[in-house]
Amino acid sequence: MADNNTRNYVVGVDLGGTKILAGVFDSKLQPVGTTKFSTKAQRGPEAVLERVARCVLDAIDECDLETKQIRAVGVGAPGAVDPEHGEVIFAPNLGWKDIAVVKDLEKRLEVPVFLENDCHICMLGVYEQELKSKPKNVVGVFIGTGIGGGMIINGEPFSGANHTAGEVGHMVIDVNGPKCNCGNKGCFEVLAGRLAIFRAIQSAIKNGEKSLLTEMLGEDLKDLRSGDIRKAIRRGDKVVEKIVEEAAEYTGIAVANLVNILNPEIVVLGGGVIEALGDEMMPTITKSAKSHVMPGLFKNVEIFASKLGDNAGITGAAVLARDKTR
Amino acid sequence: MADNNTRNYVVGVDLGGTKILAGVFDSKLQPVGTTKFSTKAQRGPEAVLERVARCVLDAIDECDLETKQIRAVGVGAPGAVDPEHGEVIFAPNLGWKDIAVVKDLEKRLEVPVFLENDCHICMLGVYEQELKSKPKNVVGVFIGTGIGGGMIINGEPFSGANHTAGEVGHMVIDVNGPKCNCGNKGCFEVLAGRLAIFRAIQSAIKNGEKSLLTEMLGEDLKDLRSGDIRKAIRRGDKVVEKIVEEAAEYTGIAVANLVNILNPEIVVLGGGVIEALGDEMMPTITKSAKSHVMPGLFKNVEIFASKLGDNAGITGAAVLARDKTR
Repeated sequence: MADNNTRNYVVGVDLGGTKILAGVFDSKLQPVGTTKFSTKAQRGPEAVLERVARCVLDAIDECDLETKQIRAVGVGAPGAVDPEHGEVIFAPNLGWKDIAVVKDLEKRLEVPVFLENDCHICMLGVYEQELKSKPKNVVGVFIGTGIGGGMIINGEPFSGANHTAGEVGHMVIDVNGPKCNCGNKGCFEVLAGRLAIFRAIQSAIKNGEKSLLTEMLGEDLKDLRSGDIRKAIRRGDKVVEKIVEEAAEYTGIAVANLVNILNPEIVVLGGGVIEALGDEMMPTITKSAKSHVMPGLFKNVEIFASKLGDNAGITGAAVLARDKTR
Repeated sequence: MADNNTRNYVVGVDLGGTKILAGVFDSKLQPVGTTKFSTKAQRGPEAVLERVARCVLDAIDECDLETKQIRAVGVGAPGAVDPEHGEVIFAPNLGWKDIAVVKDLEKRLEVPVFLENDCHICMLGVYEQELKSKPKNVVGVFIGTGIGGGMIINGEPFSGANHTAGEVGHMVIDVNGPKCNCGNKGCFEVLAGRLAIFRAIQSAIKNGEKSLLTEMLGEDLKDLRSGDIRKAIRRGDKVVEKIVEEAAEYTGIAVANLVNILNPEIVVLGGGVIEALGDEMMPTITKSAKSHVMPGLFKNVEIFASKLGDNAGITGAAVLARDKTR
């Protein structure tokens, strides 16, 4: 009880297009407990921020803690984020433009709140928890519904001139490839993101190819998830295996481009797709990356699959909250 | 004469596959004079380094100076360079592997010598002489026979974990594209470097397309140079214009990828091709870059054509020599 008034804990929030995840961490950044809400972005920013605040308060309560024991809250949000002013500038999958997240949440929670882009936050989480050697230069590639990136340069998080660095998902790697949501053709994301894999599977089935996934989920592949894809591959589904293999090859090319440009010690792969399909994809990603890096330039580069999965975001957000208040 | 024994001058050397350029600069980095030798790489590293030393001494003498007035010599060399140990690790277009450049030249010249990769050196030269606002994050793309890059990150030259960052020429942007010397397909360099432009012109003429270049240089296009291409375009050569336009479009895509990944304030374009064809290529490069950057992410990014041309290398090498000895 003596410790009740010491602000020893931080909360990390991962605000996504479909769900809000809040995690409470102790002073050693060990996880104490988490709470998950759906985002309900269609209700608008005000309602979503109210949900974020409630998710944070519920997580604190679940851990038998009180707000007065919380030192700060870190929030990772998708899209273009202005950390200095605590605003989401543009987040298409939330439908947000110029939303003052920090101001709103600080009013609701009465603790300091810090905001960053979700991929930069994931990079921070992986760097803190998984990269114990503290390499100076790291590139993170996070493959989920879309694909984003984060960077550590000279030992510090790097987000560029306007905090929008790391949009590795929209690197063009096949100039004549399929059209991406961003308007260009052949972006890494439209070739290897979760949606790309799902679309390729649906199209293969439509073209009469046989997949175990139709047995598992029905012809329309309702509620298809990355985990189903893993199960199908492990049960010998060659059609699905080939599609995932192709995504892994494209991922290797993107990794090679990043190694050629940035010469990092470590390339981190993370996100939901890697969490579910890392065992299936990593050997091909590594092989493809090695064969596409300039001869001699792969020396000492390690390709690392993050095990944090969904927790990378809340962990990184907690790191942000801690670092900003120590 | 009172100043004769003060080491107020630096020499910058650009060691290339075909020529060695040495430039003497005063304490304010104003150019005093230059000397040019051919490299004669076929004679081997020992002979080339002797030529570099002689080129430096000749340049000093041309400027009516003596070695004792030289504070330091900076050298930009192609390929993978280890600046800490002063070695060229691997330079295919010199045929060099593990050559102790600094040790050799310091013995010959008896002044401190510093070595860096030529593209990093060019970036340094442009940053010092042309980017007066001293932006914090800059990406340089240098288009010559091949294509290389340099970076300023957080106000400092960035060369990655093993000094090999910046190989932007081997970024894959057309995975099904033509084969590059590096072994991959569709690298930026094989689509937009000088050799790519020359090859496309030769192949168009072979296929019966009409170009003014055959009038100017004969059917075999002997001694074709970037300047000839500029002249042909200005005289209305549509075949050549289209080929250069395509190279500019690919360059724009590569620039867009770099902006998406690194979010710099400024992208510098330089090198022999830009020196000769900047007026022709820059509008298309800028347009293509803008249309390929993620929506919203081109904000405040400036695309800048360096005017230093061939002098970027010696200028950057002089900056290196000055910075390492002040």
